[in-house]
Amino acid sequence: MFESAELEHRLDRQKYIRIVPKLRADLLDTQYDLLEKKSFQVLLLINGVEGAGKGETVKVLHQWMDTRHLNTLASDALTEEELQRPTMWRFWRALPPRGKIGILFDNWYSEPILQRVYKAIRSAELHRRLEEINRFEEMLAQEGALLLKFWFHLSKEQQRRRLKDLSQNKETRWRVTDLERGLQKRYDRLRAISEQVLEHTNTANAPWIIVSGEDARFRNFAVGKTLLDSLRKRLSIQERGWHARISAAPLRERVDNIDVLQSLNLDQRMTKAECSELLEKWQGRLALATRRPGYNDRSVVLVFEGMDAAGKGGAIRRVTGALDPRQYYVVPIAAPTEEERMQPYLWRFWRHVPRKGGFAIFDRSWYGRVLVERVEGFCTDADWMRAYAEINDFEEQLVGHGAVICKFWLSISSDEQLKRFRDRERTRFKRFKITPEDWRNRKKWPAYEAAVCDMVDRTSTDIAPWTLVEANNKYYARIKVLRTVCERLETALS
Amino acid sequence: MFESAELEHRLDRQKYIRIVPKLRADLLDTQYDLLEKKSFQVLLLINGVEGAGKGETVKVLHQWMDTRHLNTLASDALTEEELQRPTMWRFWRALPPRGKIGILFDNWYSEPILQRVYKAIRSAELHRRLEEINRFEEMLAQEGALLLKFWFHLSKEQQRRRLKDLSQNKETRWRVTDLERGLQKRYDRLRAISEQVLEHTNTANAPWIIVSGEDARFRNFAVGKTLLDSLRKRLSIQERGWHARISAAPLRERVDNIDVLQSLNLDQRMTKAECSELLEKWQGRLALATRRPGYNDRSVVLVFEGMDAAGKGGAIRRVTGALDPRQYYVVPIAAPTEEERMQPYLWRFWRHVPRKGGFAIFDRSWYGRVLVERVEGFCTDADWMRAYAEINDFEEQLVGHGAVICKFWLSISSDEQLKRFRDRERTRFKRFKITPEDWRNRKKWPAYEAAVCDMVDRTSTDIAPWTLVEANNKYYARIKVLRTVCERLETALS
Repeated sequence: MFESAELEHRLDRQKYIRIVPKLRADLLDTQYDLLEKKSFQVLLLINGVEGAGKGETVKVLHQWMDTRHLNTLASDALTEEELQRPTMWRFWRALPPRGKIGILFDNWYSEPILQRVYKAIRSAELHRRLEEINRFEEMLAQEGALLLKFWFHLSKEQQRRRLKDLSQNKETRWRVTDLERGLQKRYDRLRAISEQVLEHTNTANAPWIIVSGEDARFRNFAVGKTLLDSLRKRLSIQERGWHARISAAPLRERVDNIDVLQSLNLDQRMTKAECSELLEKWQGRLALATRRPGYNDRSVVLVFEGMDAAGKGGAIRRVTGALDPRQYYVVPIAAPTEEERMQPYLWRFWRHVPRKGGFAIFDRSWYGRVLVERVEGFCTDADWMRAYAEINDFEEQLVGHGAVICKFWLSISSDEQLKRFRDRERTRFKRFKITPEDWRNRKKWPAYEAAVCDMVDRTSTDIAPWTLVEANNKYYARIKVLRTVCERLETALS
Repeated sequence: MFESAELEHRLDRQKYIRIVPKLRADLLDTQYDLLEKKSFQVLLLINGVEGAGKGETVKVLHQWMDTRHLNTLASDALTEEELQRPTMWRFWRALPPRGKIGILFDNWYSEPILQRVYKAIRSAELHRRLEEINRFEEMLAQEGALLLKFWFHLSKEQQRRRLKDLSQNKETRWRVTDLERGLQKRYDRLRAISEQVLEHTNTANAPWIIVSGEDARFRNFAVGKTLLDSLRKRLSIQERGWHARISAAPLRERVDNIDVLQSLNLDQRMTKAECSELLEKWQGRLALATRRPGYNDRSVVLVFEGMDAAGKGGAIRRVTGALDPRQYYVVPIAAPTEEERMQPYLWRFWRHVPRKGGFAIFDRSWYGRVLVERVEGFCTDADWMRAYAEINDFEEQLVGHGAVICKFWLSISSDEQLKRFRDRERTRFKRFKITPEDWRNRKKWPAYEAAVCDMVDRTSTDIAPWTLVEANNKYYARIKVLRTVCERLETALS
């Protein structure tokens, strides 16, 4: 991996002075072009061995380009709010919007590599994380982000000379920290591990770019030129437009009439009085569960999906009725805002990921991607088809951080929906809930049903199963939701 | 203050059951009305003595209204990210957007009252904070927010009975904490201090509403009814439209030609070579200052304002040239986004307040309110006239938390601007910077000059002074900016 980078790469001063002005002008031009078109965001990942000039080259980029539209993330330690949430939360927070360039020093490669060098994790765990990273980067790339992963390299001898130089100079001595000295001692181990990491994460959509770190002029020019060429290439592709190639078979050919929704008996029996009694019981148990000592190390994420008027709001209120308003929050999902549209689609859900001890209720959710966006054609087939795996990855991260996820599909029949629409039109304060769009959606019932079946098949996992709720009888539905939340939380805490 | 609340207020069960359904329906209706119109946000501040049913009543509100559009803030302890920034940052973060209702248990009254009860602060400090709160609330009200401040009251005897009841019941025992027992012991002191606080913050725009806490039905109905009536009244006023009354004299009658801008000698002398030499000196000093141990307890906030082409970008680059890209961030201010337009105008700047050790550079800033918004008529006269004091309050909070603020007005002559515009049109990669709007703004030069003079007079304070920079000679300007930042930071650190 590092063979070419260890050759003698130099750029002499005369030549540098001659070629840099054009590069700067072009970079700036291209940066403004990107800013104006807002068609994608750019992420520069800066990694490599100590002393290879990472900081210096990024500083030069800041001089060459418009620093106002470069966002640099480099916090040394995780803040408490970050520790309270899955690892990737901090990177989602730091993502630049479309049109801007983000520079990540401290990125998703830093921790796994360091931990492996210092033997805090085993090789298998490292590879599990690399797999996670590959999937994450693939998702970013598919969402349109341009990823440039730079690895700044020095040979062992080059590094030794370089750190010696820095230590001997009064003005740069502060930069050589204990961590760096420690890493120098472990050069061979770091090199071997990095090589593994780079090999396993060198994907078509996000390849590594190895930069020889010894000569500053060579290094700066190489990074600048790579950035320029990638930006230009990507902008020109964007202009021509392109279509993703789909080689997959269509998800569902309907041969018979048997599917997970058809197999439900929607008309369950429960009276209001029975419901009241059970409500009291399960709300009491849920309230108790959220006060158990282990609860503060967990979090709860509830997802409510269902056709219009399926009773999501009513079911949510029966859950929140058990909780103190200070504990939970409800996230109603409507059309994304301007800021949200400038980001990958999962970004607006990552914003609301609860901290430990938090209880988040999503009224509609990330599943919009494979439901309304699919049915209405708001995204391409390729987009929603890849979403199943992306969503599973997302939920896996939540669960890995202690979240208990319950996902509910509230299922009503088409007749029941019609009845409820008409009821609502008659009652005064529910009137606001029926819009012309609701009537339009109703016509697409079969398309939605197919989408729901695919969704359940592909995203009902061991760690985050779907619960299909027979909801023609709202009392039955509310109790089933409440009982499910309660039992899953109790199991998690025991 | 508490006389009426200590009388026997009761609502009998029969009557409650009869009148609540209508209240619920009306509340829900009104909530949807607010949500649809998005004309203002609502803040419910929930304060009062322990045991007076604050949590229970808020829970009832959640049952009565659509919980999806109620945001409740109640974190017990400050997170690390909050501790790193001025106190009010966490409340700005928690502000609901227009159309929504926020419920703040833990609000700006909680800490001052508790601290005074436990004698952590003196009376003078309490009153200083109340003064700050009054100004903050006045600003929120002027920005359109509807503030409802509820105080839940119990007499000493009522509280004693209530806490005893709670302690004796197995299911509610957990709610009586040590803090609550401690506060019960200090009832008289708490009552006296609360009375003071309420008297001093009982303003026309944000009066206190005292709720007798003993009877749950009375309490719930009283709060719900107050909320409903306030919402309705405010929505109807909003519909009729209204105009702020301005009784102030116009800010500036031009009698002679002497003002702070006219008195500058814009054409200072400095050659490129002189600049290079000084640049190296001051950049070195600035770099050194940001590495001093005390620096991590401070933060730096730079504000750059100036006519188009005044050289803000160039000056900013000379400052950032001294810094590591990992240390600073530049916030370019353009038109507010959709989410930002749903909030008071200072919200979008609070978002970017740096943590301790942070270095934030604003390329244009909150001064847009008294410059472009004033000149272009984007806000009313009343809005920009009150902004001077609001901005001073904002900066005072930053400085109070350790920030060093430097504000630069880069001053060029009209001729110099014209020359630069033409230059830019000729050079390839600067072309993007000239827009038709720039030419339009140029025609309003005198109006901008008047606005600048007012701004400097009214917001140049001891703690956050304006530095007027003679900028026809860009070399001179850059050095003056850099030197000012450096000297102010050095002074702050010594």
